[in-house]
Amino acid sequence: MTPGQFVSDFIAAFNNRDLDTALAMVDEECEYDNVPMGKVVGPDGMRATLAPFIAGCDQIEWLVSHQVESGTMHTGVVMNERVDRFHLPDHWLEIGVAGLFVIRNGRIVLWRDYFDKQTFLDQMSA
Amino acid sequence: MTPGQFVSDFIAAFNNRDLDTALAMVDEECEYDNVPMGKVVGPDGMRATLAPFIAGCDQIEWLVSHQVESGTMHTGVVMNERVDRFHLPDHWLEIGVAGLFVIRNGRIVLWRDYFDKQTFLDQMSA
Repeated sequence: MTPGQFVSDFIAAFNNRDLDTALAMVDEECEYDNVPMGKVVGPDGMRATLAPFIAGCDQIEWLVSHQVESGTMHTGVVMNERVDRFHLPDHWLEIGVAGLFVIRNGRIVLWRDYFDKQTFLDQMSA
Repeated sequence: MTPGQFVSDFIAAFNNRDLDTALAMVDEECEYDNVPMGKVVGPDGMRATLAPFIAGCDQIEWLVSHQVESGTMHTGVVMNERVDRFHLPDHWLEIGVAGLFVIRNGRIVLWRDYFDKQTFLDQMSA
């Protein structure tokens, strides 16, 4: 398993709307930073942020267009470029994202997503 | 020379406010995409976008916090996480950015930066 494969599995868990599997892959002190919207710490904080959002979608499709990695599962870095698509009751929300994932001792300790907040908000209310 | 070293040199050229050196590293058909603000194509388009901005700063400091790469100078991909700092006449503008660089045949053919537009605009007018 490389850090890149691990992050691919993490993304796949979201595409399966399987938050339990995803959160089992993060460290107890994991920082999850949606850069323009704020950060939370740890699986509980991540669940509080992500669960309502996932519940509001009947489909999630995060499409990775590029992914690069370095290091090992002991200490590794992965970055990817994605289009994150969420199917809301009546439309697809679609947002370009660049994500950073830092791995330590087999778990994700930092997940930071860069995107444009207004592009996201415009589609939430569309 | 690896794609990552090449991109580090590209970033260094901006930190030297040396647009000629930077633009000599990009392909004639290079796409430069500031995701929330639009894209231009080729060195001339990039110069038209970047030159006025660089002229408006007396210092540029792009600080790379993480960088990962794959491939070769023939065909490679680099992503980095940065804080891009621009010293405007009376204050520092500082923005978190995640960038994607695609290399083909020794030149950058795609440079795509993800960031929050409003965070940038708020500081332009600050």
